[in-house]
Amino acid sequence: MTEPALRPRLPRLTTARAPLTRAALVFAQDGSQRPIQLAAERALTLYVDNQELVTLMTLGQEPELLALGYLLNQALVQGAEEVESITVDWDVAAAAVRTVHGVSGLAERLARRTVTTGCGQGTVFGDWLQRVPPLPAAGTAPGSVEHSALVHLLEAMRAHPSVHREAGSVHGTALWRGGRMLVHVEDVGRHNAVDTVAGWMAMEHVDGADCWLYTTGRLTSEMVLKAAHLRVPVVVSRNGATAMGQELAERLELTLIGRASGQRYLCYSGAARLRPAAD
Amino acid sequence: MTEPALRPRLPRLTTARAPLTRAALVFAQDGSQRPIQLAAERALTLYVDNQELVTLMTLGQEPELLALGYLLNQALVQGAEEVESITVDWDVAAAAVRTVHGVSGLAERLARRTVTTGCGQGTVFGDWLQRVPPLPAAGTAPGSVEHSALVHLLEAMRAHPSVHREAGSVHGTALWRGGRMLVHVEDVGRHNAVDTVAGWMAMEHVDGADCWLYTTGRLTSEMVLKAAHLRVPVVVSRNGATAMGQELAERLELTLIGRASGQRYLCYSGAARLRPAAD
Repeated sequence: MTEPALRPRLPRLTTARAPLTRAALVFAQDGSQRPIQLAAERALTLYVDNQELVTLMTLGQEPELLALGYLLNQALVQGAEEVESITVDWDVAAAAVRTVHGVSGLAERLARRTVTTGCGQGTVFGDWLQRVPPLPAAGTAPGSVEHSALVHLLEAMRAHPSVHREAGSVHGTALWRGGRMLVHVEDVGRHNAVDTVAGWMAMEHVDGADCWLYTTGRLTSEMVLKAAHLRVPVVVSRNGATAMGQELAERLELTLIGRASGQRYLCYSGAARLRPAAD
Repeated sequence: MTEPALRPRLPRLTTARAPLTRAALVFAQDGSQRPIQLAAERALTLYVDNQELVTLMTLGQEPELLALGYLLNQALVQGAEEVESITVDWDVAAAAVRTVHGVSGLAERLARRTVTTGCGQGTVFGDWLQRVPPLPAAGTAPGSVEHSALVHLLEAMRAHPSVHREAGSVHGTALWRGGRMLVHVEDVGRHNAVDTVAGWMAMEHVDGADCWLYTTGRLTSEMVLKAAHLRVPVVVSRNGATAMGQELAERLELTLIGRASGQRYLCYSGAARLRPAAD
């Protein structure tokens, strides 16, 4: 009798939820009052095995996945199976993470931090560069990113219901595979949104290798590093790239597509994966 | 014989400069190559009295003022006169800060951090809330923000030469007083831009009380707290506010104006200072 292959045990997560928008009355330039919706922004303090780690300012859409993705992207845990449980309680604005075996060297890791360009997420930048290996060379799968598929993604993201459409002031990130959106996360910090996607991927055992990552945020160094860390080879943004974002994407063999809207976009690196629009 | 009133001694600053943009060749959707400019993004590690504090990812426009403003906004120093010198060397990506009397409790302060919504800048959020007192009530200077002056500011900022116009992917912040722009800073991190303005204000002995702060970034909790910390009562953004941004602005008696473009804007708080457009 053979045992069925077991997937690694996953952490137990609460499903804490809180309103993502709030109604407000504002004044327009003519002095008239106008009702609008505002995006929520709330503090979430992460405790790991009872030790305070960091406070994130977040929209609060999927706080457990955010906490998990943050730990993964900071390499405080190497996989979801190292986490026993994540308990979020909005009444005390806290996410209590319990690990299976503890986090070694947590104090030392906390001592040195990089405050990155992006919205939130201090990371140890030098460590990241060493830790993230290049993706498979872009040339190995020529023409796998079709123009029509990119245009489809852009149109779908434009039409997708969102806090941004309702209230503005948030960034969105979505993971796509085979022309289908797998998950969509918004946050007041664009890096929180990517971390939440990372948490989702870990819980769903999704490998990034055949995925595309869409973001409304700029393609800075940290965004590129996070995508490469998730092994996602294609990143698409409505926004542009920084010089360092492009340099890192080239070094990591990542296909970086920016200023994407409607039928138009720019490819900053990894163009070998692109199949351009037919005439 | 009376001594002339002496201004506090100011720190000695280097004037390290580095290119803010870099040319790149990218591909458009039709496969054609296209030359563009990319905004620089570089690491700047702050050392305070030889102790490593933090690494900021920055455009690098005024790194000495960024370092000074960061220390001020993090309340690591209470005024520019506490800083002896700031030496930036881009070859080693470092800003060496020498203080006059040392920074007390630096290690403890480093132990607890908040990673905020914004682009960078971990701050001890709870401490900030306690530290930043409300501004003079908005009602004390009714109608001091004229519609025509706001429209003038928006038009001037739109026309102002900028890295953003050339290369995108940066946020801009400007300080205005009496219908005139005093300083304009851009950065890949919007909070870096505000911190650099803070450094400039300290070096120029500029009081925020009769100033307006313009930003292209979203009006999140941290942006509101930073403006209040600078005692600037009016903040104008092309972008919108989060719920917490509005709440804090109300509590701190700050006039928060967002989604500002052309002749239009919304006032999220402190509307008593506004003189609306005439019919």
